[in-house]
Amino acid sequence: MNPDDPAIAFDPTPFVVMPGRPVRLDDLPTRGDDWVDGDPEVAKSAAQDANGTISARLGELQERLHATKAAKVLVVLQGMDTSGKDSTTRRVFGDGSPLGIRAVPFGRPTEVERAHDFLWRVHAAAPADGEIVVFNRSHYEDVLVVRIDELVPAERWERRFDHLVDFERMLVDEGTVVRKFFLHISRDEQHQRLQDRLDDPTKHWKFESGDLDARARWDNYQRAYEEAIARTSTDVAPWYVVPADQKWFRDLVVGSVVLEALEALDMRWPEPPEGLEHIVIPD
Amino acid sequence: MNPDDPAIAFDPTPFVVMPGRPVRLDDLPTRGDDWVDGDPEVAKSAAQDANGTISARLGELQERLHATKAAKVLVVLQGMDTSGKDSTTRRVFGDGSPLGIRAVPFGRPTEVERAHDFLWRVHAAAPADGEIVVFNRSHYEDVLVVRIDELVPAERWERRFDHLVDFERMLVDEGTVVRKFFLHISRDEQHQRLQDRLDDPTKHWKFESGDLDARARWDNYQRAYEEAIARTSTDVAPWYVVPADQKWFRDLVVGSVVLEALEALDMRWPEPPEGLEHIVIPD
Repeated sequence: MNPDDPAIAFDPTPFVVMPGRPVRLDDLPTRGDDWVDGDPEVAKSAAQDANGTISARLGELQERLHATKAAKVLVVLQGMDTSGKDSTTRRVFGDGSPLGIRAVPFGRPTEVERAHDFLWRVHAAAPADGEIVVFNRSHYEDVLVVRIDELVPAERWERRFDHLVDFERMLVDEGTVVRKFFLHISRDEQHQRLQDRLDDPTKHWKFESGDLDARARWDNYQRAYEEAIARTSTDVAPWYVVPADQKWFRDLVVGSVVLEALEALDMRWPEPPEGLEHIVIPD
Repeated sequence: MNPDDPAIAFDPTPFVVMPGRPVRLDDLPTRGDDWVDGDPEVAKSAAQDANGTISARLGELQERLHATKAAKVLVVLQGMDTSGKDSTTRRVFGDGSPLGIRAVPFGRPTEVERAHDFLWRVHAAAPADGEIVVFNRSHYEDVLVVRIDELVPAERWERRFDHLVDFERMLVDEGTVVRKFFLHISRDEQHQRLQDRLDDPTKHWKFESGDLDARARWDNYQRAYEEAIARTSTDVAPWYVVPADQKWFRDLVVGSVVLEALEALDMRWPEPPEGLEHIVIPD
C-alpha cells in the first residue's frame, strides 16, 4: 500500500490463504462488516472513495508498467456464477488502458482446446512483459467443473493440483506477479442476483439455465473450491478469499492486493534518452 | 518394438539416459560401430533396410494415431549445428502425413516471444490428441545458448531445469508421449559437415557464420548439454544420446525409440459406426 495515502491504507492481509492451510468456506465471511468501524453507510461511502483512488492509482501504475516492462502481471478471478467477476474487472481495472491490460474470459473449451493439455489455452493467454492480464475463470475450472461434471477421469484431474502450482511457479520465476481471488458470495446473495438477472431486461443476456445446474451443486462446488484453493495457494502465487456479497468491499480487497503488488515493483519512469533536453522540435 | 519383424528388432535401450545419472558426452559414442556385428558395410546396408521398414511402419502408426486420437506425441531433437536434426526429421518421419505430423523449428525468439516466459512459445506448439510434433530445437535452448551467451541471468536459467521437468510431466499426465534425442556428433564430423556446406552450393543456405561461433564454444556447449540432459531425463520423458556421426545408425536409434513408443499405445482402428455393413452407396 501507499502509506502516504490514508484513503487507500486498507490492509487485505486477513484474506490471504496461508500455504498448506485447510480452507473452510462456510467459516469465511462473505460480507465485510467485521472490517468496518461505526456506521455501515459511512464505511461504505469511505470505501467507495478509497476504491476510486485505488482504481486511479492502478491506472497510473499500469501505464508505468507498460512503459518500463518491469514485470508481467496475472490476476485470476474465480467464483460461483454472479459472484462479480465481470464487475470486478470493470470496476477495479477500468482506469487502465487496453494497450497494456487484457481481460481474458475462459468459457467452455473448444474442440481444439480440449484436444490439448489443460494448460495450453491459458498459457497462450499469459501476460508479456509490461502487461496486466485478468483471467475471468481460468485453469482452475479444470479441477472444478471438470471434476464435478466428471468430464475427465479422477486420476487426471487429481494430478492437476501439482501442475497448477508448478505452472504458476514457472510464471513467477520468469518474471510474473500472480494474484488469485476467489469471490466468495453467500447462497442467499446468489439467489438475489440470479433473480435480478431474470427481472432486469438488461441482464437477461447474462442468465444461462446452466447457472441453475451449478447452483444445484452448490455444496459440491464449495468443497471443490476449498480443495483447489488450499492445495494451490503458495507464497509466490497466493489465493485470497474475498468477501463478495458487497461490491464495494470486494473491490476494496481486490484493488488493495493488486495495488500493493504493483507498488512493490517500485517502478520509476524510464530514464530519458541522453541529450533529450537539447532536442528542439522543428517548427 | 515389433518382435515379429526381425528387420526392425533393434534395441535402443543402451542409449537412454537413466534419470539422475550424470552424463559425460566424451565417454559416449558418436558412432554405432560397437553395435554392429561383422562387416560394417553389410551392417550399414542391413540398417538402411531396417530404417525403411521402420519409417513405413511409423507412417502407418501415425495414421492410426490420427484416426484414434489415442495420444499426443512430442519428439524433441537437439544437437550441435550439423548434427542432423533436419535430416532426421525428413528421414525418420518422412512417411507420415502432414495431416497429423508437424515439424516445428525454434530459432532465435521474436520480440513477442522474448517478452513471455520461456515455455510460452513451445507450449503453444505442443501436440493435440492424434498429433505427432517434432521440435527441431526446443525449450532446451533456454538452458543452452541462453546460458552460454549469457542472455538471461543465471538465477533465472538455473531454475528452468525444474520447470522443464515439471512442464513435460504435465504434458505426459495430460496424455502426451515425450521422447527427447541429443544427436551426438564428434567435433571432427562437424568439421567435415560444415566444410560440405561451404563446398556444396545446394547447402550454402544452411551455412551461418554463427555456426562457427557455436563451434568455437564447443566445450561450453557439451558441458551445458551434459547438465541439461542429466537434470531433465525422467522415466516419463527420457533423453537418448544418439550416436549421430553415421546417419543410418542415428536414424535406426531414433526410429526404433519412436516406433517402440507408438507400438506401446496398442492402437486398433476405431470400431465402425453401427450398421456400416448395411450401407449402400447410391449410384
